[in-house]
Amino acid sequence: MELSRRQMLASAAFAAAAPPAGVTHYVRFAAAGRSSYGRLEGDQIQPLSAEPWANPKPAGKPIAASAAKLLHPCLPPKVLAVGRNYKSHLGKETPPSRPELFYKPITCLIGPGESIVIPTGSKATNYEGELVIVIGKACRHASPAEAKAAIFGYTCGNDVSERDWQGGPDKDMQWWRAKGSDTFGPLGPVIAAGIDPAAGLQLQTRLNGQVVQKQSTSDLLFNCTDVVVFASRFVTLTPGDVIYTGTPGSTKPMKSGDVVEVEIDKIGVLRNPVKGA
Amino acid sequence: MELSRRQMLASAAFAAAAPPAGVTHYVRFAAAGRSSYGRLEGDQIQPLSAEPWANPKPAGKPIAASAAKLLHPCLPPKVLAVGRNYKSHLGKETPPSRPELFYKPITCLIGPGESIVIPTGSKATNYEGELVIVIGKACRHASPAEAKAAIFGYTCGNDVSERDWQGGPDKDMQWWRAKGSDTFGPLGPVIAAGIDPAAGLQLQTRLNGQVVQKQSTSDLLFNCTDVVVFASRFVTLTPGDVIYTGTPGSTKPMKSGDVVEVEIDKIGVLRNPVKGA
Repeated sequence: MELSRRQMLASAAFAAAAPPAGVTHYVRFAAAGRSSYGRLEGDQIQPLSAEPWANPKPAGKPIAASAAKLLHPCLPPKVLAVGRNYKSHLGKETPPSRPELFYKPITCLIGPGESIVIPTGSKATNYEGELVIVIGKACRHASPAEAKAAIFGYTCGNDVSERDWQGGPDKDMQWWRAKGSDTFGPLGPVIAAGIDPAAGLQLQTRLNGQVVQKQSTSDLLFNCTDVVVFASRFVTLTPGDVIYTGTPGSTKPMKSGDVVEVEIDKIGVLRNPVKGA
Repeated sequence: MELSRRQMLASAAFAAAAPPAGVTHYVRFAAAGRSSYGRLEGDQIQPLSAEPWANPKPAGKPIAASAAKLLHPCLPPKVLAVGRNYKSHLGKETPPSRPELFYKPITCLIGPGESIVIPTGSKATNYEGELVIVIGKACRHASPAEAKAAIFGYTCGNDVSERDWQGGPDKDMQWWRAKGSDTFGPLGPVIAAGIDPAAGLQLQTRLNGQVVQKQSTSDLLFNCTDVVVFASRFVTLTPGDVIYTGTPGSTKPMKSGDVVEVEIDKIGVLRNPVKGA
Protein backbone atom coordinates (compact mmCIF):
# COMPACT_ATOMS: atom_id res chain seq x y z
CA MET A 1 0.00 0.00 0.00
CA GLU A 2 1.19 3.51 -0.83
CA LEU A 3 -0.45 6.52 0.78
CA SER A 4 -3.34 7.84 -1.24
CA ARG A 5 -2.96 11.14 -3.09
CA ARG A 6 -5.22 12.70 -0.45
CA GLN A 7 -3.07 11.40 2.42
CA MET A 8 0.10 12.59 0.64
CA LEU A 9 -1.37 16.05 0.23
CA ALA A 10 -2.35 16.13 3.88
CA SER A 11 1.20 15.11 4.72
CA ALA A 12 2.72 17.78 2.46
CA ALA A 13 0.30 20.34 3.87
CA PHE A 14 1.42 19.56 7.42
CA ALA A 15 5.05 19.82 6.44
CA ALA A 16 4.31 23.15 4.82
CA ALA A 17 2.79 24.64 7.97
CA ALA A 18 4.78 27.75 8.84
CA PRO A 19 7.66 26.88 11.21
CA PRO A 20 8.02 28.79 14.49
CA ALA A 21 9.94 32.08 14.44
CA GLY A 22 13.68 31.56 14.02
CA VAL A 23 13.22 28.07 12.58
CA THR A 24 13.80 27.26 8.90
CA HIS A 25 12.45 24.13 7.22
CA TYR A 26 14.41 22.61 4.34
CA VAL A 27 13.19 19.82 2.10
CA ARG A 28 14.32 17.68 -0.79
CA PHE A 29 11.57 17.19 -3.32
CA ALA A 30 10.67 15.90 -6.75
CA ALA A 31 8.65 18.00 -9.15
CA ALA A 32 8.41 18.10 -12.94
CA GLY A 33 10.64 15.05 -13.23
CA ARG A 34 13.62 16.30 -11.25
CA SER A 35 14.69 16.46 -7.62
CA SER A 36 16.06 19.51 -5.79
CA TYR A 37 16.63 20.90 -2.36
CA GLY A 38 14.27 23.66 -1.27
CA ARG A 39 13.21 25.96 1.55
CA LEU A 40 9.60 25.87 2.74
CA GLU A 41 7.89 29.26 2.68
CA GLY A 42 4.28 28.89 3.77
CA ASP A 43 2.61 26.62 1.21
CA GLN A 44 5.41 27.21 -1.29
CA ILE A 45 8.83 25.65 -1.79
CA GLN A 46 11.68 27.91 -2.86
CA PRO A 47 14.08 25.65 -4.85
CA LEU A 48 17.74 25.98 -3.84
CA SER A 49 20.96 25.69 -5.83
CA ALA A 50 22.68 23.31 -3.39
CA GLU A 51 22.35 21.38 -0.16
CA PRO A 52 20.93 23.52 2.66
CA TRP A 53 24.26 23.49 4.54
CA ALA A 54 26.26 24.53 1.45
CA ASN A 55 25.22 28.20 1.33
CA PRO A 56 22.62 27.62 -1.38
CA LYS A 57 21.05 30.39 -3.45
CA PRO A 58 17.41 30.54 -4.58
CA ALA A 59 17.18 28.68 -7.90
CA GLY A 60 14.13 29.59 -9.96
CA LYS A 61 10.62 30.46 -8.88
CA PRO A 62 8.82 29.04 -5.84
CA ILE A 63 6.46 26.15 -6.56
CA ALA A 64 3.34 25.02 -4.71
CA ALA A 65 4.24 22.46 -2.03
CA SER A 66 1.13 20.52 -3.05
CA ALA A 67 2.70 19.95 -6.49
CA ALA A 68 5.90 18.45 -5.04
CA LYS A 69 6.64 14.97 -3.72
CA LEU A 70 8.78 15.23 -0.60
CA LEU A 71 11.83 12.94 -0.57
CA HIS A 72 14.03 12.02 2.38
CA PRO A 73 15.45 15.44 3.12
CA CYS A 74 19.13 14.77 2.36
CA LEU A 75 21.36 12.20 0.66
CA PRO A 76 23.69 11.16 3.49
CA PRO A 77 27.15 9.80 2.69
CA LYS A 78 26.60 7.64 5.77
CA VAL A 79 24.02 6.89 8.44
CA LEU A 80 24.88 6.42 12.10
CA ALA A 81 22.48 5.54 14.90
CA VAL A 82 22.60 5.34 18.69
CA GLY A 83 21.13 2.53 20.78
CA ARG A 84 20.03 2.63 24.43
CA ASN A 85 19.84 6.41 24.59
CA TYR A 86 16.67 6.94 26.69
CA LYS A 87 16.27 5.58 30.22
CA SER A 88 12.67 4.64 29.36
CA HIS A 89 13.92 2.24 26.63
CA LEU A 90 16.46 0.48 28.86
CA GLY A 91 14.13 -1.54 31.06
CA LYS A 92 16.35 -3.03 33.76
CA GLU A 93 19.57 -2.67 31.76
CA THR A 94 22.41 -0.50 33.04
CA PRO A 95 22.69 2.80 31.17
CA PRO A 96 25.68 2.75 28.79
CA SER A 97 28.83 4.64 29.83
CA ARG A 98 29.24 6.10 26.32
CA PRO A 99 27.08 6.41 23.21
CA GLU A 100 26.50 2.95 21.69
CA LEU A 101 26.61 3.55 17.95
CA PHE A 102 25.98 1.47 14.85
CA TYR A 103 25.57 2.01 11.10
CA LYS A 104 22.56 1.77 8.84
CA PRO A 105 23.22 1.51 5.07
CA ILE A 106 22.12 4.38 2.82
CA THR A 107 20.01 1.96 0.78
CA CYS A 108 17.52 1.64 3.67
CA LEU A 109 16.47 5.30 3.51
CA ILE A 110 12.95 6.22 2.39
CA GLY A 111 11.08 9.50 2.40
CA PRO A 112 7.76 10.62 3.87
CA GLY A 113 4.82 8.67 2.45
CA GLU A 114 6.95 5.82 1.15
CA SER A 115 6.13 2.31 2.35
CA ILE A 116 8.02 0.43 5.03
CA VAL A 117 8.21 -3.09 3.58
CA ILE A 118 8.23 -5.96 6.09
CA PRO A 119 10.89 -8.35 4.72
CA THR A 120 10.14 -11.97 3.89
CA GLY A 121 10.80 -14.10 6.97
CA SER A 122 10.37 -11.22 9.43
CA LYS A 123 8.39 -11.92 12.60
CA ALA A 124 8.81 -8.62 14.45
CA THR A 125 9.51 -5.51 12.37
CA ASN A 126 9.17 -2.75 14.99
CA TYR A 127 8.89 1.03 14.70
CA GLU A 128 11.37 3.23 16.61
CA GLY A 129 10.52 6.93 16.51
CA GLU A 130 13.66 9.07 16.79
CA LEU A 131 15.18 12.53 16.56
CA VAL A 132 17.83 12.58 13.80
CA ILE A 133 20.86 14.89 13.62
CA VAL A 134 21.88 16.27 10.20
CA ILE A 135 25.59 17.16 9.93
CA GLY A 136 26.43 20.30 7.94
CA LYS A 137 30.17 20.57 8.40
CA ALA A 138 32.94 17.93 8.36
CA CYS A 139 34.39 17.21 11.77
CA ARG A 140 36.87 14.91 13.48
CA HIS A 141 37.84 15.09 17.16
CA ALA A 142 35.20 17.79 17.58
CA SER A 143 35.09 19.80 20.79
CA PRO A 144 31.59 20.43 22.19
CA ALA A 145 31.61 23.86 20.49
CA GLU A 146 32.76 22.35 17.19
CA ALA A 147 30.14 19.61 17.48
CA LYS A 148 27.40 22.22 17.93
CA ALA A 149 28.69 24.10 14.90
CA ALA A 150 28.83 20.88 12.85
CA ILE A 151 25.11 20.16 13.41
CA PHE A 152 23.11 21.83 10.66
CA GLY A 153 19.67 20.76 11.83
CA TYR A 154 17.33 17.94 12.78
CA THR A 155 14.70 15.72 11.23
CA CYS A 156 12.41 12.87 12.29
CA GLY A 157 13.41 9.26 11.73
CA ASN A 158 12.07 5.79 12.19
CA ASP A 159 14.88 3.35 13.05
CA VAL A 160 12.86 0.33 11.88
CA SER A 161 14.18 -2.78 13.66
CA GLU A 162 13.56 -6.50 13.22
CA ARG A 163 13.69 -7.75 16.83
CA ASP A 164 14.02 -11.41 15.96
CA TRP A 165 17.16 -10.72 13.90
CA GLN A 166 18.44 -8.16 16.39
CA GLY A 167 18.29 -10.22 19.55
CA GLY A 168 15.71 -12.99 19.18
CA PRO A 169 15.86 -16.66 18.17
CA ASP A 170 17.05 -15.73 14.67
CA LYS A 171 19.73 -13.34 15.96
CA ASP A 172 22.63 -12.31 13.72
CA MET A 173 26.12 -11.51 14.96
CA GLN A 174 25.60 -7.84 13.99
CA TRP A 175 22.47 -5.80 13.20
CA TRP A 176 23.00 -5.53 9.46
CA ARG A 177 19.55 -6.97 8.55
CA ALA A 178 17.81 -6.04 11.81
CA LYS A 179 18.50 -2.34 11.25
CA GLY A 180 19.57 -2.16 7.60
CA SER A 181 17.03 -3.98 5.42
CA ASP A 182 15.66 -1.93 2.53
CA THR A 183 13.02 0.64 3.70
CA PHE A 184 14.18 0.43 7.36
CA GLY A 185 15.27 4.10 7.37
CA PRO A 186 12.29 6.50 7.01
CA LEU A 187 13.54 10.09 7.28
CA GLY A 188 11.80 13.47 7.05
CA PRO A 189 9.66 15.37 6.27
CA VAL A 190 11.96 18.41 6.69
CA ILE A 191 15.32 19.42 8.12
CA ALA A 192 14.62 22.01 10.80
CA ALA A 193 17.45 24.49 11.38
CA GLY A 194 17.36 26.78 14.42
CA ILE A 195 15.88 24.37 16.97
CA ASP A 196 17.39 23.08 20.21
CA PRO A 197 16.49 19.49 21.18
CA ALA A 198 18.36 19.84 24.50
CA ALA A 199 15.78 22.44 25.51
CA GLY A 200 13.08 19.75 25.16
CA LEU A 201 11.04 18.92 22.06
CA GLN A 202 8.16 16.48 22.37
CA LEU A 203 8.75 13.30 20.34
CA GLN A 204 5.68 11.20 19.64
CA THR A 205 5.15 8.02 17.62
CA ARG A 206 1.63 7.04 16.54
CA LEU A 207 0.57 3.67 15.14
CA ASN A 208 -2.71 3.99 13.24
CA GLY A 209 -3.35 7.25 15.08
CA GLN A 210 -2.73 5.86 18.58
CA VAL A 211 0.18 7.30 20.58
CA VAL A 212 2.71 4.51 21.25
CA GLN A 213 5.84 6.49 22.18
CA LYS A 214 6.05 9.87 23.89
CA GLN A 215 9.12 11.52 25.36
CA SER A 216 10.99 14.80 25.45
CA THR A 217 14.27 14.98 23.50
CA SER A 218 15.76 16.60 26.62
CA ASP A 219 15.62 13.09 28.15
CA LEU A 220 18.32 11.74 25.81
CA LEU A 221 21.04 10.13 27.97
CA PHE A 222 23.70 11.44 25.57
CA ASN A 223 22.52 14.64 23.95
CA CYS A 224 23.21 15.52 20.34
CA THR A 225 26.45 17.36 21.12
CA ASP A 226 27.73 14.43 23.23
CA VAL A 227 26.99 12.01 20.39
CA VAL A 228 28.82 14.09 17.75
CA VAL A 229 31.80 14.65 20.06
CA PHE A 230 32.14 10.93 20.80
CA ALA A 231 31.46 9.62 17.27
CA SER A 232 33.96 12.06 15.79
CA ARG A 233 36.75 10.80 18.07
CA PHE A 234 36.86 7.71 15.84
CA VAL A 235 35.00 8.45 12.63
CA THR A 236 35.10 11.56 10.43
CA LEU A 237 31.61 13.03 10.05
CA THR A 238 30.90 14.65 6.69
CA PRO A 239 28.22 17.10 5.47
CA GLY A 240 24.89 15.35 4.95
CA ASP A 241 25.66 12.50 7.37
CA VAL A 242 22.72 11.72 9.63
CA ILE A 243 22.68 10.27 13.15
CA TYR A 244 19.53 8.62 14.52
CA THR A 245 19.71 9.43 18.23
CA GLY A 246 17.81 6.52 19.81
CA THR A 247 14.24 5.62 20.68
CA PRO A 248 12.31 6.07 23.95
CA GLY A 249 9.96 3.69 25.73
CA SER A 250 8.89 0.39 24.24
CA THR A 251 8.06 -0.59 20.69
CA LYS A 252 5.83 -3.09 18.95
CA PRO A 253 5.75 -4.95 15.64
CA MET A 254 3.98 -3.37 12.68
CA LYS A 255 1.81 -5.21 10.15
CA SER A 256 0.79 -4.67 6.57
CA GLY A 257 -1.84 -1.93 6.35
CA ASP A 258 -0.57 0.01 9.38
CA VAL A 259 0.40 3.67 9.20
CA VAL A 260 3.20 4.87 11.50
CA GLU A 261 3.89 8.51 12.29
CA VAL A 262 6.83 10.10 14.08
CA GLU A 263 6.15 13.67 15.14
CA ILE A 264 8.62 16.06 16.77
CA ASP A 265 7.84 19.63 17.89
CA LYS A 266 9.09 22.29 15.47
CA ILE A 267 9.99 19.65 12.84
CA GLY A 268 6.76 17.98 11.73
CA VAL A 269 5.28 14.54 11.08
CA LEU A 270 7.04 11.70 9.27
CA ARG A 271 4.25 9.39 8.08
CA ASN A 272 4.83 6.00 6.43
CA PRO A 273 2.45 3.21 5.50
CA VAL A 274 3.51 -0.39 6.12
CA LYS A 275 3.19 -3.26 3.69
CA GLY A 276 4.28 -6.88 3.30
CA ALA A 277 7.08 -7.94 0.95
CA MET B 1 54.87 7.41 8.68
CA GLU B 2 53.97 7.49 4.98
CA LEU B 3 55.68 5.13 2.56
CA SER B 4 58.78 6.64 0.97
CA ARG B 5 58.72 7.68 -2.67
CA ARG B 6 60.89 4.61 -3.42
CA GLN B 7 58.48 2.27 -1.64
CA MET B 8 55.50 3.87 -3.39
CA LEU B 9 57.17 3.39 -6.76
CA ALA B 10 57.92 -0.22 -5.92
CA SER B 11 54.28 -0.62 -4.96
CA ALA B 12 53.04 1.04 -8.16
CA ALA B 13 55.49 -1.06 -10.18
CA PHE B 14 54.09 -4.25 -8.64
CA ALA B 15 50.56 -3.19 -9.31
CA ALA B 16 51.55 -2.42 -12.88
CA ALA B 17 52.93 -5.92 -13.51
CA ALA B 18 51.03 -7.37 -16.48
CA PRO B 19 47.98 -9.32 -15.29
CA PRO B 20 47.51 -12.94 -16.44
CA ALA B 21 45.77 -13.54 -19.77
CA GLY B 22 42.04 -12.84 -19.62
CA VAL B 23 42.42 -10.65 -16.51
CA THR B 24 42.03 -6.86 -16.60
CA HIS B 25 43.33 -4.56 -13.85
CA TYR B 26 41.50 -1.32 -13.15
CA VAL B 27 42.70 1.45 -10.87
CA ARG B 28 41.65 4.80 -9.52
CA PHE B 29 44.53 7.24 -9.47
CA ALA B 30 45.58 10.83 -8.92
CA ALA B 31 47.86 12.58 -11.38
CA ALA B 32 48.35 16.21 -12.32
CA GLY B 33 45.97 17.33 -9.58
CA ARG B 34 42.94 15.25 -10.51
CA SER B 35 41.66 11.74 -9.91
CA SER B 36 40.33 9.34 -12.55
CA TYR B 37 39.61 5.71 -13.17
CA GLY B 38 42.04 3.89 -15.43
CA ARG B 39 43.02 0.56 -16.97
CA LEU B 40 46.53 -0.76 -16.37
CA GLU B 41 48.43 -1.57 -19.55
CA GLY B 42 51.94 -2.73 -18.71
CA ASP B 43 53.63 0.21 -16.99
CA GLN B 44 51.05 2.65 -18.33
CA ILE B 45 47.58 3.67 -17.14
CA GLN B 46 44.93 4.34 -19.76
CA PRO B 47 42.56 6.90 -18.18
CA LEU B 48 38.86 6.03 -18.51
CA SER B 49 35.76 8.18 -18.89
CA ALA B 50 33.76 6.46 -16.13
CA GLU B 51 33.80 3.74 -13.50
CA PRO B 52 35.15 0.44 -14.85
CA TRP B 53 31.72 -1.21 -14.60
CA ALA B 54 29.96 1.64 -16.42
CA ASN B 55 31.19 0.87 -19.96
CA PRO B 56 33.92 3.50 -19.84
CA LYS B 57 35.75 4.79 -22.92
CA PRO B 58 39.46 5.68 -23.08
CA ALA B 59 39.81 9.32 -22.03
CA GLY B 60 43.02 10.96 -23.16
CA LYS B 61 46.50 9.53 -23.53
CA PRO B 62 48.03 6.80 -21.35
CA ILE B 63 50.28 8.06 -18.56
CA ALA B 64 53.22 6.37 -16.83
CA ALA B 65 52.00 4.40 -13.79
CA SER B 66 55.07 5.68 -11.93
CA ALA B 67 53.70 9.25 -12.27
CA ALA B 68 50.35 8.34 -10.69
CA LYS B 69 49.36 7.92 -7.08
CA LEU B 70 47.05 4.92 -6.74
CA LEU B 71 43.87 5.56 -4.71
CA HIS B 72 41.45 3.02 -3.27
CA PRO B 73 40.17 1.58 -6.54
CA CYS B 74 36.53 2.65 -6.29
CA LEU B 75 34.27 5.01 -4.34
CA PRO B 76 31.71 2.63 -2.82
CA PRO B 77 28.24 3.89 -1.92
CA LYS B 78 28.48 1.38 0.91
CA VAL B 79 30.84 -1.18 2.42
CA LEU B 80 29.73 -4.58 3.67
CA ALA B 81 31.89 -7.21 5.30
CA VAL B 82 31.51 -10.84 6.36
CA GLY B 83 32.69 -12.31 9.66
CA ARG B 84 33.55 -15.95 10.46
CA ASN B 85 33.93 -17.00 6.85
CA TYR B 86 36.99 -19.31 7.02
CA LYS B 87 37.08 -22.45 9.16
CA SER B 88 40.66 -21.56 10.12
CA HIS B 89 39.47 -18.29 11.73
CA LEU B 90 36.71 -19.91 13.80
CA GLY B 91 38.80 -21.74 16.40
CA LYS B 92 36.32 -23.89 18.33
CA GLU B 93 33.27 -21.85 17.33
CA THR B 94 30.46 -23.45 15.32
CA PRO B 95 30.47 -22.36 11.67
CA PRO B 96 27.63 -19.91 10.98
CA SER B 97 24.52 -21.18 9.18
CA ARG B 98 24.44 -18.11 6.94
CA PRO B 99 26.81 -15.26 6.05
CA GLU B 100 27.31 -13.00 9.11
CA LEU B 101 27.46 -9.50 7.67
CA PHE B 102 28.19 -6.03 9.02
CA TYR B 103 28.88 -2.55 7.67
CA LYS B 104 32.01 -0.45 7.58
CA PRO B 105 31.57 3.30 6.93
CA ILE B 106 32.98 4.76 3.69
CA THR B 107 35.07 7.20 5.74
CA CYS B 108 37.36 4.34 6.86
CA LEU B 109 38.60 3.60 3.34
CA ILE B 110 42.23 4.29 2.42
CA GLY B 111 44.27 3.42 -0.66
CA PRO B 112 47.56 1.58 -1.19
CA GLY B 113 50.47 3.26 0.57
CA GLU B 114 48.26 5.29 2.92
CA SER B 115 48.83 4.89 6.64
CA ILE B 116 46.67 2.82 8.95
CA VAL B 117 46.40 5.05 12.04
CA ILE B 118 46.06 3.29 15.40
CA PRO B 119 43.38 5.28 17.24
CA THR B 120 43.98 6.89 20.61
CA GLY B 121 43.03 4.43 23.34
CA SER B 122 43.45 1.36 21.14
CA LYS B 123 45.18 -1.66 22.67
CA ALA B 124 44.82 -4.21 19.85
CA THR B 125 44.42 -2.87 16.31
CA ASN B 126 44.73 -6.07 14.25
CA TYR B 127 45.20 -6.68 10.53
CA GLU B 128 42.73 -8.91 8.66
CA GLY B 129 43.77 -9.73 5.08
CA GLU B 130 40.73 -10.33 2.88
CA LEU B 131 39.42 -10.82 -0.63
CA VAL B 132 36.95 -8.03 -1.48
CA ILE B 133 34.06 -8.24 -3.96
CA VAL B 134 33.33 -5.18 -6.15
CA ILE B 135 29.70 -4.93 -7.32
CA GLY B 136 29.16 -3.67 -10.86
CA LYS B 137 25.41 -3.98 -11.27
CA ALA B 138 22.53 -3.19 -8.90
CA CYS B 139 20.83 -6.27 -7.52
CA ARG B 140 18.11 -7.27 -5.06
CA HIS B 141 16.91 -10.84 -4.46
CA ALA B 142 19.67 -12.01 -6.81
CA SER B 143 19.65 -15.61 -8.02
CA PRO B 144 23.09 -17.28 -8.09
CA ALA B 145 23.38 -16.42 -11.82
CA GLU B 146 22.35 -12.81 -11.17
CA ALA B 147 24.82 -12.59 -8.27
CA LYS B 148 27.65 -13.77 -10.53
CA ALA B 149 26.66 -11.20 -13.13
CA ALA B 150 26.48 -8.45 -10.48
CA ILE B 151 30.10 -9.02 -9.38
CA PHE B 152 32.37 -6.84 -11.52
CA GLY B 153 35.67 -7.91 -10.00
CA TYR B 154 37.78 -8.29 -6.88
CA THR B 155 40.39 -6.42 -4.91
CA CYS B 156 42.47 -6.90 -1.75
CA GLY B 157 41.31 -5.47 1.56
CA ASN B 158 42.46 -5.18 5.13
CA ASP B 159 39.47 -5.31 7.50
CA VAL B 160 41.40 -3.58 10.30
CA SER B 161 39.81 -4.51 13.65
CA GLU B 162 40.27 -3.27 17.20
CA ARG B 163 39.82 -6.46 19.24
CA ASP B 164 39.38 -4.75 22.58
CA TRP B 165 36.42 -2.75 21.22
CA GLN B 166 35.10 -5.70 19.22
CA GLY B 167 34.94 -8.31 21.97
CA GLY B 168 37.40 -7.43 24.72
CA PRO B 169 37.11 -5.59 28.05
CA ASP B 170 36.22 -2.35 26.26
CA LYS B 171 33.57 -4.00 24.07
CA ASP B 172 30.89 -1.92 22.37
CA MET B 173 27.37 -3.14 21.65
CA GLN B 174 28.14 -3.08 17.90
CA TRP B 175 31.42 -2.95 15.95
CA TRP B 176 31.16 0.67 14.80
CA ARG B 177 34.57 1.71 16.22
CA ALA B 178 36.15 -1.77 16.15
CA LYS B 179 35.69 -2.06 12.38
CA GLY B 180 34.87 1.50 11.33
CA SER B 181 37.44 3.91 12.75
CA ASP B 182 39.12 6.18 10.19
CA THR B 183 41.79 4.30 8.12
CA PHE B 184 40.38 0.85 9.09
CA GLY B 185 39.49 0.06 5.46
CA PRO B 186 42.60 -0.30 3.24
CA LEU B 187 41.51 -1.32 -0.27
CA GLY B 188 43.42 -1.97 -3.50
CA PRO B 189 45.71 -1.75 -5.38
CA VAL B 190 43.55 -2.74 -8.39
CA ILE B 191 40.17 -4.20 -9.26
CA ALA B 192 40.83 -7.44 -11.12
CA ALA B 193 38.11 -8.46 -13.58
CA GLY B 194 38.12 -11.93 -15.12
CA ILE B 195 39.30 -13.93 -12.09
CA ASP B 196 37.52 -16.70 -10.18
CA PRO B 197 38.16 -16.86 -6.42
CA ALA B 198 36.10 -20.07 -6.12
CA ALA B 199 38.75 -21.79 -8.26
CA GLY B 200 41.30 -20.95 -5.53
CA LEU B 201 43.50 -17.87 -5.30
CA GLN B 202 46.22 -17.74 -2.70
CA LEU B 203 45.62 -15.02 -0.09
CA GLN B 204 48.61 -13.99 1.99
CA THR B 205 49.09 -11.33 4.65
CA ARG B 206 52.61 -10.22 5.59
CA LEU B 207 53.61 -8.15 8.62
CA ASN B 208 57.01 -6.53 8.07
CA GLY B 209 57.69 -9.10 5.37
CA GLN B 210 56.78 -12.14 7.48
CA VAL B 211 53.83 -14.28 6.34
CA VAL B 212 51.12 -14.16 9.04
CA GLN B 213 48.03 -15.35 7.13
CA LYS B 214 47.89 -17.77 4.20
CA GLN B 215 44.82 -19.45 2.76
CA SER B 216 43.12 -20.19 -0.54
CA THR B 217 40.00 -18.19 -1.38
CA SER B 218 38.39 -21.52 -2.33
CA ASP B 219 38.24 -22.20 1.44
CA LEU B 220 35.65 -19.46 2.04
CA LEU B 221 32.70 -21.03 3.93
CA PHE B 222 30.27 -18.88 1.94
CA ASN B 223 31.73 -18.12 -1.46
CA CYS B 224 31.30 -14.77 -3.20
CA THR B 225 28.13 -15.79 -5.02
CA ASP B 226 26.56 -17.09 -1.77
CA VAL B 227 27.35 -13.81 -0.03
CA VAL B 228 25.82 -11.64 -2.77
CA VAL B 229 22.71 -13.86 -2.97
CA PHE B 230 22.16 -13.70 0.79
CA ALA B 231 22.99 -10.00 1.30
CA SER B 232 20.71 -9.01 -1.57
CA ARG B 233 17.73 -10.79 0.00
CA PHE B 234 17.61 -7.89 2.49
CA VAL B 235 19.71 -5.04 1.16
CA THR B 236 19.92 -3.61 -2.38
CA LEU B 237 23.49 -3.77 -3.66
CA THR B 238 24.50 -0.93 -5.97
CA PRO B 239 27.38 -0.43 -8.43
CA GLY B 240 30.64 0.30 -6.64
CA ASP B 241 29.57 -1.35 -3.37
CA VAL B 242 32.31 -3.52 -1.91
CA ILE B 243 32.04 -6.60 0.30
CA TYR B 244 35.01 -7.72 2.42
CA THR B 245 34.62 -11.51 2.47
CA GLY B 246 36.26 -12.47 5.78
CA THR B 247 39.73 -13.27 7.08
CA PRO B 248 41.46 -16.66 7.53
CA GLY B 249 43.57 -17.95 10.39
CA SER B 250 44.56 -15.80 13.33
CA THR B 251 45.56 -12.16 13.53
CA LYS B 252 47.78 -10.00 15.71
CA PRO B 253 47.97 -6.36 16.76
CA MET B 254 50.02 -3.93 14.65
CA LYS B 255 52.22 -1.17 16.02
CA SER B 256 53.53 2.14 14.75
CA GLY B 257 56.30 1.57 12.20
CA ASP B 258 54.92 -1.75 10.92
CA VAL B 259 54.15 -2.37 7.25
CA VAL B 260 51.29 -4.73 6.44
CA GLU B 261 50.73 -6.31 3.04
CA VAL B 262 47.75 -8.27 1.71
CA GLU B 263 48.55 -10.17 -1.48
CA ILE B 264 46.11 -12.18 -3.58
CA ASP B 265 47.00 -14.12 -6.76
CA LYS B 266 46.04 -12.33 -9.96
CA ILE B 267 45.19 -9.12 -8.07
CA GLY B 268 48.40 -7.82 -6.48
CA VAL B 269 49.72 -6.46 -3.20
CA LEU B 270 47.95 -3.96 -0.95
CA ARG B 271 50.70 -2.42 1.18
CA ASN B 272 50.05 0.00 4.07
CA PRO B 273 52.35 1.42 6.74
CA VAL B 274 51.05 1.72 10.30
CA LYS B 275 51.38 4.74 12.56
CA GLY B 276 50.13 6.00 15.91
CA ALA B 277 47.46 8.66 16.24
